[in-house]
Amino acid sequence: MKFDLLKTDTETKARRGRLHTAHGVVETPVFMPVGTQATVKGMTPEQREALGAEIILSNACDLFVRPGHELIKGQGGLHRFMGWDRPILTDSGGYQVFSLSDLRKIDDDGVRFRSHLDGAPLFLSPEIAVDVQSALGSDVVMVLDDCLAHPASHDDALRSMRRSMEWARRCRTRFDSIEDNPNALFGIVQGSTFPDLRAESADRLIETGFDGYAIGGLAVGEPIPEMYDIVEAQDPLLPPDKPRYLMGVGTPRDLIECVARGVDMFDCVMPTRHARNGWLFTTEGHIVIRHARFRNDESPIDENCECPVCKKYSRAYLRHLYVSKEILSSILNTTHNLFFYLDTMRRIRHFIESERFSELLAAARSSGAQ
Amino acid sequence: MKFDLLKTDTETKARRGRLHTAHGVVETPVFMPVGTQATVKGMTPEQREALGAEIILSNACDLFVRPGHELIKGQGGLHRFMGWDRPILTDSGGYQVFSLSDLRKIDDDGVRFRSHLDGAPLFLSPEIAVDVQSALGSDVVMVLDDCLAHPASHDDALRSMRRSMEWARRCRTRFDSIEDNPNALFGIVQGSTFPDLRAESADRLIETGFDGYAIGGLAVGEPIPEMYDIVEAQDPLLPPDKPRYLMGVGTPRDLIECVARGVDMFDCVMPTRHARNGWLFTTEGHIVIRHARFRNDESPIDENCECPVCKKYSRAYLRHLYVSKEILSSILNTTHNLFFYLDTMRRIRHFIESERFSELLAAARSSGAQ
Repeated sequence: MKFDLLKTDTETKARRGRLHTAHGVVETPVFMPVGTQATVKGMTPEQREALGAEIILSNACDLFVRPGHELIKGQGGLHRFMGWDRPILTDSGGYQVFSLSDLRKIDDDGVRFRSHLDGAPLFLSPEIAVDVQSALGSDVVMVLDDCLAHPASHDDALRSMRRSMEWARRCRTRFDSIEDNPNALFGIVQGSTFPDLRAESADRLIETGFDGYAIGGLAVGEPIPEMYDIVEAQDPLLPPDKPRYLMGVGTPRDLIECVARGVDMFDCVMPTRHARNGWLFTTEGHIVIRHARFRNDESPIDENCECPVCKKYSRAYLRHLYVSKEILSSILNTTHNLFFYLDTMRRIRHFIESERFSELLAAARSSGAQ
Repeated sequence: MKFDLLKTDTETKARRGRLHTAHGVVETPVFMPVGTQATVKGMTPEQREALGAEIILSNACDLFVRPGHELIKGQGGLHRFMGWDRPILTDSGGYQVFSLSDLRKIDDDGVRFRSHLDGAPLFLSPEIAVDVQSALGSDVVMVLDDCLAHPASHDDALRSMRRSMEWARRCRTRFDSIEDNPNALFGIVQGSTFPDLRAESADRLIETGFDGYAIGGLAVGEPIPEMYDIVEAQDPLLPPDKPRYLMGVGTPRDLIECVARGVDMFDCVMPTRHARNGWLFTTEGHIVIRHARFRNDESPIDENCECPVCKKYSRAYLRHLYVSKEILSSILNTTHNLFFYLDTMRRIRHFIESERFSELLAAARSSGAQ
């Protein structure tokens, strides 16, 4: 994998880049739609492509549990299985296991947990996490990390971070043992909200050496300004010639704020999950489509939006589909919200290119947009 | 509305025709996908068009209850509301009310029933049924009829049929009072399984005069051979220069058998509803995609199918989506099943045109296909 840093903003830390992967090129900053179970919920691959999605995230841990990575490997890999020939980044499973915390047991070897489907005992180690993602044929493999709940004490965060760094090293060793490996491996900076631990984590990862660096352990309940500060403090610690990926973040406003702090890659379930709940993003804040005031509303979700849903359907129709529990409600709402996110990234890239990113940032701040 | 009878098969009663409606031309014999709540479940209008759907059926009674025909009229009519500019036929509501039989009360005036949503009292008369469908802007309006459960006594069937015929006459009067009406009105033959009542019903409808004739009251539990006999007996009773529409039927085999008995139009929830339940049609019978034997199956649903799902996805992937309860499961299964039905109709039309329809019929019979 190769990363070209095309332009760095002079007034902020925003970066315009290009990621070359085994399945094609990704323009950064980029938002990756989440496709947990080998599909982005509610969309066909063709619909995702039409919206301009260049890379998606899938969850290795979910696929490890069902249908199994060996099955997918036997079907020609995840790209072929799900009919998507553009790049895929896979989450290693650390965060997924963390989300099921009452069922997990972590030690230095790895994570023992139970399947959320049938309670079967499962084990994930750094080596297994790499093997699973390699079997899937992921373009960007993430190291297995130990995710802490927020808030954590300095002691707990230190122990957890050091374990994660040792796991990252073991992932690197396993990944490097794969012959003719066309894929990339990203490390994940941990250390909770403690600057000294974040700095040590970054140093240790850089010492091991990765194709990209993720900022993990955020968006777990800490206040947003604190999250922004941690992201900002990360920038000088990470090598400028490698992509930075902020995991699990966030709102459209978060995307702009964190690009301004040097982030190149994002993923979040928010646009797709909110869509299914009828929460729709607009340039003037969100709307909740089930509300009675949209019952007879002939206007589109957002007058300023160029998405195929806004060009064709009224809020009244979308409300009707939502209250009628129609599948098309999820399809159209997901189309709009994902377009909104992908279009936000297109505008971010455009404004960095034309050296006007600060204007976009100022506009986002003054509009009070989420 | 104009109907061109292009060709009549010499060995069977199969007919090749063309329906000219206010929203375009429909080649017959035709299958109409069902879009009850102003959407065909699980598909965008663009996806329906790509599969070759030329006309869809929507249920006036459902839309009357929610969101209301006046609301849809205010939004520019049903075509604009749901983003579908091809023809729409609307079911009057008789069968829908019949399906909710414990809540309805029928007399000569019309049907009193309760909303399945909030229990609100509602009333549908022949005049209101026409007004509702006209407000929607339906290309083909169906008369309101009184649907009987099967089996029914001759007395009950007689009374019900005569009421339906009187209602049909009142619908005609109301429909004709609408100025510059570009749409068509179809009558519905009733009479349960009694040939004398079916004959009287057809005579009375023809006396009133309609743009097309539907065969109603079938597919309500009677044996399939009896249904075929009734359809066959209907043919000489109906004017050859008007389209015949068999309501709510059926399996792919039923389509071929009933085309052979002179039917031009069909609708049925089977392909779409079965799709959501993982029941998929193939040229060699159906498969139930959740079955464990498809867990690792690399082949498509049907090797002989040219649909976009069979060209791209394995049974293993479709099983994974189904057991994972992914929305994409309904989307892809619906795509396949609807293609299967629409392609069956394309083959039927092609074989009638090339004077080989009997071959297709014989092949369907000898294959034992459903």
